[in-house]
Amino acid sequence: MIHGDMQPFALTLNKFLEHAAKWHCTAEVVTGRADGATDRIGYAELQNRSLRISAVLQSFDIRPGDRIATLAWNTQAHMEVCYAVMSIGAVCHTLNPRLLCAQLAAMAEQSQTRILVVSEDLLPLAGDIAERATSIDRVLIIDAATQFDAPYPDRPPYHLLEPLIGEARSERVIWGDFEETAPSALCFTSGTTGPPKGVTYTHRSSFLHTLRLLQTDVMALSAADSVLTAVPMFHANAWGLPFAAPAAGAKLVLPGRHTDGAALARLIAAEAVTVAVGVPTVWHALLEHIEAHGGDLPTLKRIIMGGSPLSAALMERLERRLGVKVQTSWGMTELSPSGTVSPLNNPLRSAVLSGRPAVGVDLLITDAAGAALPEQRNVEGHLRVRGAAVISRYFNEEKAATDADGWFATGDLARIDTSGNLMIVGRAKDLIKSGGEWINPAEIEALIGALPEVSHAAVIGRPDPRWGERPILLVEMRDAQQLSDAALLAPLQGRVAPWWVPDAIYRLTRMPLASTGKIDKQSLRSDYGSPIELKAQHPPRSNEA
Amino acid sequence: MIHGDMQPFALTLNKFLEHAAKWHCTAEVVTGRADGATDRIGYAELQNRSLRISAVLQSFDIRPGDRIATLAWNTQAHMEVCYAVMSIGAVCHTLNPRLLCAQLAAMAEQSQTRILVVSEDLLPLAGDIAERATSIDRVLIIDAATQFDAPYPDRPPYHLLEPLIGEARSERVIWGDFEETAPSALCFTSGTTGPPKGVTYTHRSSFLHTLRLLQTDVMALSAADSVLTAVPMFHANAWGLPFAAPAAGAKLVLPGRHTDGAALARLIAAEAVTVAVGVPTVWHALLEHIEAHGGDLPTLKRIIMGGSPLSAALMERLERRLGVKVQTSWGMTELSPSGTVSPLNNPLRSAVLSGRPAVGVDLLITDAAGAALPEQRNVEGHLRVRGAAVISRYFNEEKAATDADGWFATGDLARIDTSGNLMIVGRAKDLIKSGGEWINPAEIEALIGALPEVSHAAVIGRPDPRWGERPILLVEMRDAQQLSDAALLAPLQGRVAPWWVPDAIYRLTRMPLASTGKIDKQSLRSDYGSPIELKAQHPPRSNEA
Repeated sequence: MIHGDMQPFALTLNKFLEHAAKWHCTAEVVTGRADGATDRIGYAELQNRSLRISAVLQSFDIRPGDRIATLAWNTQAHMEVCYAVMSIGAVCHTLNPRLLCAQLAAMAEQSQTRILVVSEDLLPLAGDIAERATSIDRVLIIDAATQFDAPYPDRPPYHLLEPLIGEARSERVIWGDFEETAPSALCFTSGTTGPPKGVTYTHRSSFLHTLRLLQTDVMALSAADSVLTAVPMFHANAWGLPFAAPAAGAKLVLPGRHTDGAALARLIAAEAVTVAVGVPTVWHALLEHIEAHGGDLPTLKRIIMGGSPLSAALMERLERRLGVKVQTSWGMTELSPSGTVSPLNNPLRSAVLSGRPAVGVDLLITDAAGAALPEQRNVEGHLRVRGAAVISRYFNEEKAATDADGWFATGDLARIDTSGNLMIVGRAKDLIKSGGEWINPAEIEALIGALPEVSHAAVIGRPDPRWGERPILLVEMRDAQQLSDAALLAPLQGRVAPWWVPDAIYRLTRMPLASTGKIDKQSLRSDYGSPIELKAQHPPRSNEA
Repeated sequence: MIHGDMQPFALTLNKFLEHAAKWHCTAEVVTGRADGATDRIGYAELQNRSLRISAVLQSFDIRPGDRIATLAWNTQAHMEVCYAVMSIGAVCHTLNPRLLCAQLAAMAEQSQTRILVVSEDLLPLAGDIAERATSIDRVLIIDAATQFDAPYPDRPPYHLLEPLIGEARSERVIWGDFEETAPSALCFTSGTTGPPKGVTYTHRSSFLHTLRLLQTDVMALSAADSVLTAVPMFHANAWGLPFAAPAAGAKLVLPGRHTDGAALARLIAAEAVTVAVGVPTVWHALLEHIEAHGGDLPTLKRIIMGGSPLSAALMERLERRLGVKVQTSWGMTELSPSGTVSPLNNPLRSAVLSGRPAVGVDLLITDAAGAALPEQRNVEGHLRVRGAAVISRYFNEEKAATDADGWFATGDLARIDTSGNLMIVGRAKDLIKSGGEWINPAEIEALIGALPEVSHAAVIGRPDPRWGERPILLVEMRDAQQLSDAALLAPLQGRVAPWWVPDAIYRLTRMPLASTGKIDKQSLRSDYGSPIELKAQHPPRSNEA
């Protein structure tokens, strides 16, 4: 047997920042502040600060494998902390400040997090969490605008991080001194369709995920780009952009807490942003701002969209008004999170197609029981996924998250076209079973959501004594416009079976959105999904009709 | 300690072909034939054939770690064999048919290769090799135009591969059933500056090298591309393109044996090639063909250039006449082979700059002893490199190929500009020491080579009783044009120290080129580098002048 004698090179995430610091030292990380000002720093100096934060953590006896939670927005300090934590082998557990204290405390307790890093404006929430999660023995405050006046209890101790950075000596800090399969970060799923579960990323999985994002047919990031991420770090590490931007040597623009249309338009213009990444609702708000206030964003070339379905109308409006190309994508927390991205040169670019998988991601269409369908193209089925950045087991669970062949069931319903492009057609958990037959809410939502008067449309199932379940429609109208029930349901005529037509319509002033910007169906089900005795506004249609 | 629970995904090279076969099944591998016709196959069918070749190899008792040598051109069959060998854990040892039989037999003996796979037109050479290299117990013939009439000895047995593929059953073949750090291929360096040495690539190193090539700021390959590689497989796996093209789902165009200007122009036009990759001499020949015979190559967008220095004049002519953008690059066999590639959007694109390293490659400028220079930018020094696809030890050698800090000394002299762009300024081994001071032949060659009448210029050292060594100039003139010695040396006036001016000029009808297209300085040194008693044509200049 002969040996392959190439150099060792561990796939650890610290390498991205080290690369940027050495080869793109003046490329910047820019943070938008609430007052419209920006903070900026080059990668070399950001690495320097991050190394000193590692020293601070080690002075608090943080060791490889320890968990540090963050409760913060997309800012330079948050990014510095994430690299500081992960690069010494500790695990960065990003918490979503839009969840309830009880949920967050349960997550922190579950991960046995030792330190909580918090943005100053979230201190009240952090205090409540620290009180409940007994593993937290220290709170570090970042993004503090003012001097900290310690209105908090003695236990656990609170520290402003900035003065500690100033005092820290990083000479003895060693980054990357652990196996590449060590855990790097912990992120709980958004829980729009069930209770949150933890996903434990590894250095290797996120490293390979990052290399995928850099490919021309994926996110195609370049050192010539200025990348704005409107995706928060607590959503799968901001979709991996704090890794991918330094890996490419690109400028990274972080919007801080404020991702309204005006703030994003200002940042895009001021920072010559070329690529913007986030969920449709965010870019919808940007578009509405530009439409209302005028202006152009000439540097912006691409918007990479993901997280929830995109309407063809919004895609077309964005491309026409902003002069950009929209790249659709599909992913989930369990996928690190990118599954597929529609490449810029995809001849079949459309709002409903999410692109082909790049090498390292594989897809399978199965029946409800998980058996592969004999034909994998142009048939609808349940989507499973396998790959280098896909979960194998949820945090703290015994059982595998995959089947015997290593496939992870996404819960999505999908179809793959002849060219290999993925089309997500719905969530399996959202399916409604009426009279023994399935109704796909996503199809109904797409038809009604295309009405110009409709801002959001959601269809959920409601228990029904005769049919098992029946669909009901919840709508939020654009600018409080009015439409009759008949007009709302008209798009369904001839497009779906008559028994798919919802039995009831509820007009909401504001559709409940989860912290990801997705419609919160859990909340809708709890408010509107109870069985009713009353006669439905529309009598159930026969499944045979 | 918590675990990171992401899926296992070994970085083995079979995954690239499997990915292409599944997701880009109709993208083609096209081979140019001598008669101007082409063979073509989709990735799915290519994988199918390659699996059956694995079965053939296993029927000959080939096991993981065994070496299989190939002596062949860039063809579909050669690619099928390479994947068949590597995917079962055997090692593909590519031999360069332009070397001498004695050299090749020594390499085959050194690697203890068991099977020699040979293109039919190279059978005489293969026969001689098999006679000398006793480890070879079988010869497989590919790319056979006619029925094989067995004019060879009984031992070792010879087989045409094609009928064996037809009979083979691949059901029991398992690809990728080995560690990702297993050796995948063996390639000997070109030996233009010394005896050839073997580099043993691993699956992991070539996998990570491939992911680098796919990045937007490196080769930026896309499924929309048609990629022509004029680089032979026996040069570091054709610079990795037989991995990168299927990984991206790109069409791959292989020119077979014939890489003259006419053949390449025909292939580029017929196969709508968008990206062409190879050494400057090949693209020079293409340009001269187009200039002489007219025509356009409208699909061709980029030429990626490497392997030897590129003149600014050739780059400008190529870009103007062909309407392409030229991307320069730097690499070597020991680097798998890509070190840096100048990205398409590099604002400092020029013939002498080779781009910035992508993540996974790191560069260091040292003094002659290997100590890092205190200033790493805008100073000339010896270039060392470190990274995931860089050699750590030559084949069959005990001692490391790296220094104590893991750096590999490239033998190149280089400078890195403020933006991190690499400029190779010469080969350390080519340096001439005259009166205790160094002369860099590359600088003299660049100045004289820029004369429009000069086709090739080389400067080598010749032992000199007074100065130790003195430079001599060897030139090949374009179209047999004439220039006086004074006119040839005129460009040096005021540009180099007077004692750098060569002592003698030799006009060659044809400059000896190594099989890589580089000027063969070893051959020049053996023919012209002997000390002479005669008075030099130009008296030595004083080093003090």
